[in-house]
Amino acid sequence: MKRRLRLGMVGGGQGAFIGAVHRLSSRMDDKYEFIAGCLSSTSEKAELSAKELGLDMSRSYADYKTMAEEEAKKEDGIDVVSIVTPNHMHAGPAIEFLKKNIHVICDKPMTSTMEDAYKLMEVIKGSNAHFFLTHNYSGYPVIREMRTVVKNGELGIIRIVKGNYFQGWLGSKEEDSGSNKQAEWRTDPNRSGAAGAVGDIGSHTMHLIEFVTGLQCESVAADLTTFVQGRRLDDDASIMIRMNNNAKGNLSISQVATGQENNFNISIYGDKGALHWAQENPNYARFSKVGCADQIITRGGAIQNKNSYGPIRIPPGHPEGYLEGFAQIYSDVADIILDHKNKSELLKLIPNGDSGLQIMKFINASVNSSKNNSIWTLLNSI
Amino acid sequence: MKRRLRLGMVGGGQGAFIGAVHRLSSRMDDKYEFIAGCLSSTSEKAELSAKELGLDMSRSYADYKTMAEEEAKKEDGIDVVSIVTPNHMHAGPAIEFLKKNIHVICDKPMTSTMEDAYKLMEVIKGSNAHFFLTHNYSGYPVIREMRTVVKNGELGIIRIVKGNYFQGWLGSKEEDSGSNKQAEWRTDPNRSGAAGAVGDIGSHTMHLIEFVTGLQCESVAADLTTFVQGRRLDDDASIMIRMNNNAKGNLSISQVATGQENNFNISIYGDKGALHWAQENPNYARFSKVGCADQIITRGGAIQNKNSYGPIRIPPGHPEGYLEGFAQIYSDVADIILDHKNKSELLKLIPNGDSGLQIMKFINASVNSSKNNSIWTLLNSI
Amino acid sequence: MKRRLRLGMVGGGQGAFIGAVHRLSSRMDDKYEFIAGCLSSTSEKAELSAKELGLDMSRSYADYKTMAEEEAKKEDGIDVVSIVTPNHMHAGPAIEFLKKNIHVICDKPMTSTMEDAYKLMEVIKGSNAHFFLTHNYSGYPVIREMRTVVKNGELGIIRIVKGNYFQGWLGSKEEDSGSNKQAEWRTDPNRSGAAGAVGDIGSHTMHLIEFVTGLQCESVAADLTTFVQGRRLDDDASIMIRMNNNAKGNLSISQVATGQENNFNISIYGDKGALHWAQENPNYARFSKVGCADQIITRGGAIQNKNSYGPIRIPPGHPEGYLEGFAQIYSDVADIILDHKNKSELLKLIPNGDSGLQIMKFINASVNSSKNNSIWTLLNSI
Amino acid sequence: MKRRLRLGMVGGGQGAFIGAVHRLSSRMDDKYEFIAGCLSSTSEKAELSAKELGLDMSRSYADYKTMAEEEAKKEDGIDVVSIVTPNHMHAGPAIEFLKKNIHVICDKPMTSTMEDAYKLMEVIKGSNAHFFLTHNYSGYPVIREMRTVVKNGELGIIRIVKGNYFQGWLGSKEEDSGSNKQAEWRTDPNRSGAAGAVGDIGSHTMHLIEFVTGLQCESVAADLTTFVQGRRLDDDASIMIRMNNNAKGNLSISQVATGQENNFNISIYGDKGALHWAQENPNYARFSKVGCADQIITRGGAIQNKNSYGPIRIPPGHPEGYLEGFAQIYSDVADIILDHKNKSELLKLIPNGDSGLQIMKFINASVNSSKNNSIWTLLNSI
Repeated sequence: MKRRLRLGMVGGGQGAFIGAVHRLSSRMDDKYEFIAGCLSSTSEKAELSAKELGLDMSRSYADYKTMAEEEAKKEDGIDVVSIVTPNHMHAGPAIEFLKKNIHVICDKPMTSTMEDAYKLMEVIKGSNAHFFLTHNYSGYPVIREMRTVVKNGELGIIRIVKGNYFQGWLGSKEEDSGSNKQAEWRTDPNRSGAAGAVGDIGSHTMHLIEFVTGLQCESVAADLTTFVQGRRLDDDASIMIRMNNNAKGNLSISQVATGQENNFNISIYGDKGALHWAQENPNYARFSKVGCADQIITRGGAIQNKNSYGPIRIPPGHPEGYLEGFAQIYSDVADIILDHKNKSELLKLIPNGDSGLQIMKFINASVNSSKNNSIWTLLNSI
Repeated sequence: MKRRLRLGMVGGGQGAFIGAVHRLSSRMDDKYEFIAGCLSSTSEKAELSAKELGLDMSRSYADYKTMAEEEAKKEDGIDVVSIVTPNHMHAGPAIEFLKKNIHVICDKPMTSTMEDAYKLMEVIKGSNAHFFLTHNYSGYPVIREMRTVVKNGELGIIRIVKGNYFQGWLGSKEEDSGSNKQAEWRTDPNRSGAAGAVGDIGSHTMHLIEFVTGLQCESVAADLTTFVQGRRLDDDASIMIRMNNNAKGNLSISQVATGQENNFNISIYGDKGALHWAQENPNYARFSKVGCADQIITRGGAIQNKNSYGPIRIPPGHPEGYLEGFAQIYSDVADIILDHKNKSELLKLIPNGDSGLQIMKFINASVNSSKNNSIWTLLNSI
Repeated sequence: MKRRLRLGMVGGGQGAFIGAVHRLSSRMDDKYEFIAGCLSSTSEKAELSAKELGLDMSRSYADYKTMAEEEAKKEDGIDVVSIVTPNHMHAGPAIEFLKKNIHVICDKPMTSTMEDAYKLMEVIKGSNAHFFLTHNYSGYPVIREMRTVVKNGELGIIRIVKGNYFQGWLGSKEEDSGSNKQAEWRTDPNRSGAAGAVGDIGSHTMHLIEFVTGLQCESVAADLTTFVQGRRLDDDASIMIRMNNNAKGNLSISQVATGQENNFNISIYGDKGALHWAQENPNYARFSKVGCADQIITRGGAIQNKNSYGPIRIPPGHPEGYLEGFAQIYSDVADIILDHKNKSELLKLIPNGDSGLQIMKFINASVNSSKNNSIWTLLNSI
Repeated sequence: MKRRLRLGMVGGGQGAFIGAVHRLSSRMDDKYEFIAGCLSSTSEKAELSAKELGLDMSRSYADYKTMAEEEAKKEDGIDVVSIVTPNHMHAGPAIEFLKKNIHVICDKPMTSTMEDAYKLMEVIKGSNAHFFLTHNYSGYPVIREMRTVVKNGELGIIRIVKGNYFQGWLGSKEEDSGSNKQAEWRTDPNRSGAAGAVGDIGSHTMHLIEFVTGLQCESVAADLTTFVQGRRLDDDASIMIRMNNNAKGNLSISQVATGQENNFNISIYGDKGALHWAQENPNYARFSKVGCADQIITRGGAIQNKNSYGPIRIPPGHPEGYLEGFAQIYSDVADIILDHKNKSELLKLIPNGDSGLQIMKFINASVNSSKNNSIWTLLNSI
């Protein structure tokens, strides 16, 4: 008989964006049922949101501490909780639930401060429950295929890594419009952390490069800019990076790139081959090999490797997108929790505390470098 | 309090493809709960599939007649049934459930034969329940936006319509491989109907052109071919078409187009503007206007019309795909059944018996034309 | 010491379009010097044009007959003449120069009428000089590479051929504007011949398909339309085609395709592979092979075949275009005339009287079919 | 009567690449005749090359000094000389010809050393002749159109500039192959100068950004790398840049980007709009405006500005490429020399000593920054 995981949520009430994405993604592969929530820090709003979403009202909580305690006590308590609050509210609930051995799926980045990150990391290490981060782009099947291609050595020694993440939605002072909650908290250092664009989307960029290549960023030289007057955090950055194994490259990160929707793309160059991928048409990658014509990798297409763990819900040519990639993280997390036979392999794929901490260091090293006239800054100095 | 529709399914057991797509799509926007099924014509397989999907076994039926009868009697009986069987098995269950005033969502094409289509049409007219067809590509937000652009007169008078649907998966005799159920029934005249590729994907092509333009096909001159030796139905077709209002054009339909995954694209040319869309990158359309630079319409982007009924689950640049388009049909059907305020508008969007019959005529007129040396054949003669 | 061919021209005076293209193309590879001309049927304009182009005025002629006679007498008379007049003025000068054994490079299509085509063909057969047609798209290096790929059997047996040629410049009645000479003669049956769009650009489409595949069109079922009221020739056509060796397909031809500039593309599908090429980005082709990822053929790139005769003026990635393709025809013609070692191979590549006549049959069979309710019409019946 | 400029050439003999490009480009618009040369530093090779190219042998010179002297004396001496030697051989001949008041068209970068650049600059200032640099990409019509769009204020205030130039041809040690002269001198500090990839293609990138935006680079923080062991100059670079008017951005430059042919692209973001262009498909640009759908600018297309000086040889949709862009520089230089009415406008377009010196500073500042741990380095400190 089929067993669906019982899912709770912290955050994601009315007006939120990413909470709805998490819920939809959890439904997609039918491995969860959403049964409990502390959907807003305002209790009235929490209740309203719970009603709207059809929760049993006895499972709607006004604060996450009570929720963790109550759910931990129940026989049919939640197996896993999704934390979909602004960054500064990640560590608190994550720690609470982990202490109750309830698995945590947390939105990225891990926390708003390094201090919180280290604190959370301690708890993660001591908990019997898992902690996962929704670096959702690593759920795209073609990205996972690229990871396998690199792992199989088809690019040879990686030399250059490039990442661009261009959005234009913060091109003017949206946070003052009174109607854009996303803009408000993402440009607020108290809620977002030390970085704006670098924390919000630079984090995805660096994670994906590390995910695909298996390399780690060691140091950065960054130039962060705030183009929109009066904004309190960076909205644009150029970052030169040095990875281990002598790979190098740079990142271009912007939320004031006029006209861009969500143009996130990466290129990986080795001495034998190269790979290119762009998020806005994510079912395809370009694959170069020295002396060969470029090839087009397609989701589920002719040259898919086994062991890429990029399951194919629908045949090639039927585009999957952002939500399916997100859902893949949820699906894999469920398989891990339910001890699916691929558990050990899946654990290598799903972003966890270690990757979360590394990205926190990347964000803060970039901020520090930029404050110090773009001096090369080691991630391990953070 | 939230009300989810109770959903049943006929077909879609183990080994089926489109059943899983229907179920996933029904879950996506959280407007259905799947509670009953007659998942296979083999009762053992039906039971196994029901278990696997977590159905309450008392709601798993061995035949669709019993299911219709039993569900109609229950207070918490299904509101709507999805019929996801091969074509020859559409009419039977559809008629049964409609007679019990249970709404029907049926996979396309409507039936395998004209006779069945007319018979079903009679029942649709007499039923208090709705009958809908999953011409899923009409659920893509950009397609709906294009429909609005045409409706607003921005293309002027439509002159030319072009549709191409290229797949390559039937390039060799897959139906003899013993492991491809999709190929087996789709190339079998007893299960598929009079046409192969024209029925399977030509049907989508013509529907989408009519959906976007609001025009109707009046006659066809077709050249159907069976390239793979021994195959019993067409696997390729060139079809010249004449629409009402003096629009004209042609279709290229193939399932032996080597290398093609699901390359379905349409172009609409009016005397003032033109639109182009391709399914494999469906979040974008190209929009030409006389004397202007071409513009790129994006899902949810800058020039979206109100009243396109292409709801935006996630922001522009976060690609939605095939499953989201499919889910849109399910979401709209739920809103219709639940008397959502947009009901009357949505009823114009969702393919129904009328569009189903028109496409059946198109399929059969194409077959007849091809048998008669490609003579121009009126759809109304069918 | 370098020997440049002495080149004359008939037509191509002020206000003409294609004459300038021929002259530029002849200069590109430095194998010709342009020294004589009968540049207009109006003698005053002929003289003015000659001056403007820097011709020695003693080599500017008022009529092509005199030019042929005088140039034939001179020791340093022209080696080759380019005929760049409207279609109805191709046969006259071509015959005159061929009779004087002066080589002819003629713009396409061969003539305006079948009668002229047959007459010219007789003269071609009896002349010691060569007759060449500027089906310039066959000069693109990637097109020639595609021809080799087909010849090498990499597509297997060709099943389907598709050609689209979309332009929008005749979307309104340009021929009445008083300022568009191109529109005037191209829509005038007396100057253009029996067909408009089909003759002007359908001719290129069919030639290129035959050039790449080595197949020949045997019959057509065509639906020609004149969308712009009052126009005297077709401006749009759908044409179903049957080639020898059981290949089939269709063409979409339009000069009223709003917004299209010069969107000419072809696809060739065999049972083992497929090729796709689009003129607006002509340095690339997509190459599918069963069971493989699609590959990108680039001009001069990694998988170029020897013997494609697609010489590389500049390295891959440095785009060549329309003029270079055109120049390739001129370059090859020079090599043929100067008995270059590849002469026999080049003779197979450059369009001649035979291909000219075949395309004339295609044009006229399409017109006849369309007049007869799109009945299948054999090219050999023309 | 038409007047063609008399053209001489220094360098460009057998085995050279760019010399042939210059000659072809000079022929394209029929404004030059090539009549004299000092085609190689080896006199034998110079003679052989001259013969092959059909020069009058009395105008083939063994050294450039003699050539400058002799040609200056002749009544029909050359009007202009093209210098197409490796970088270290630019300054010598340029100075010699400028002193004789013969116009100079010089390949980029201006010189190999800053010392030479300043020396040459002095001579340029004192000469009655013009000095031009073939930063050929500024000859592309769409690039010039983009420059006008920026100038017209349609992007608002420029915030971000991005340039990428990726080639892969130096991915292994080509300079040791014994058969790649291009690789040999371009990786040789004595002939190339202080930089490899940055000098060769970084120079183009920075020039084009300055050309399109009208801004100037003020400082750089660079990380140059030599990936191929034993190579003597950089083959890859990440460069963060700061322009005047508070614009910022970065460049990615590589000649070891496996699989890349000549992928040169730029993006310019202002607070009101943005522009994107890629060299490998150069007839198109993407144009974003806040609140509008993205538009596609095409060469010669619907929204072309007057005064862009991007003359249209052939209609839109007929692709022009690298050679036509190069030829545009030659064509404009001829118009300048012949006092064409647009002379003053053209002088603003064609790269000259000032732009040459600026690019030299950019190259050397990048090298210096990289040597100093990527410290921000002012161009004016060079």
